[in-house]
Amino acid sequence: MQHTLVALVENQPGVLQRVANLFSRRGFNIESLTVGHTDTPKRSRMTIVVNAADTQVDQVTKQLYKLINVLKVSDVTTDRTVDRELALIKVNASASTRAEIAQVVDIFRARIVDLARDSLTVEVTGESEKIDSIVGLLRPFGLKEMVRTGRISMTRGSGAIGVNGSA
Amino acid sequence: MQHTLVALVENQPGVLQRVANLFSRRGFNIESLTVGHTDTPKRSRMTIVVNAADTQVDQVTKQLYKLINVLKVSDVTTDRTVDRELALIKVNASASTRAEIAQVVDIFRARIVDLARDSLTVEVTGESEKIDSIVGLLRPFGLKEMVRTGRISMTRGSGAIGVNGSA
Repeated sequence: MQHTLVALVENQPGVLQRVANLFSRRGFNIESLTVGHTDTPKRSRMTIVVNAADTQVDQVTKQLYKLINVLKVSDVTTDRTVDRELALIKVNASASTRAEIAQVVDIFRARIVDLARDSLTVEVTGESEKIDSIVGLLRPFGLKEMVRTGRISMTRGSGAIGVNGSA
Repeated sequence: MQHTLVALVENQPGVLQRVANLFSRRGFNIESLTVGHTDTPKRSRMTIVVNAADTQVDQVTKQLYKLINVLKVSDVTTDRTVDRELALIKVNASASTRAEIAQVVDIFRARIVDLARDSLTVEVTGESEKIDSIVGLLRPFGLKEMVRTGRISMTRGSGAIGVNGSA
């Protein structure tokens, strides 16, 4: 089953290594991982998506807590969350296919962010399934390149995943 | 100086660990890192933002190439690129401040994606500076929680960073 873990960590060299080691030692394949700033200086937030059994994820969550510089870990898989991912997709586009691609882009509320003679680049955000859908529709035109951020998640409502937070 | 590295890797357990180890051993602090799917099954794309001197980054790029499961590494720092980041920001919002927040959200072409009695959640994409700006404007209302994906980058024009790509 796919799990989404959120970890608050101190922004120190080595913390990503320790987290990655923990997953690697257990043979977990990480589907996606993002690490970025929070509003608190020196504190980063990781979102890790893994495919694993519930019991395995419980264990790894406990062990994450024991790592130096890891402040908080939450498995938000079953929580009510806003899940988002960002993708940039470079697709072949000629004068004759551009309009058709623009139509797909409009329907998905995506944006064309770069245009070249024979290609264009689309920016799209949404749940992973939405990204998969637009990729599926753009693929027939010929994908040149794609980059996806991987999922970030935030619990719905007023609660916050924080060291003093409620979630 | 801030550098943006793009690495194409095979989607195998341990590859993230090896990459993280390389940066950690050299005491590099990673500003942000994302790993997500590409359009090629079993292949992932990492975007790594680090603060380091040019010569250090040259060295680490060469060493990344030697790692198992690393297929391609590009330092796109000086390339013409589309740079994007996605953030979810949960901010305190009462009946009396909601309209003011909605105005900020509109100006930044952001979206309100969740609403609770005393808070709301904003989704915004753009260059890191744009995210910093909206965070700065929302901060006075009281930030409850924030998650950012970190930067993803794609070269402008038709070239592609691929194993057979031109960039």
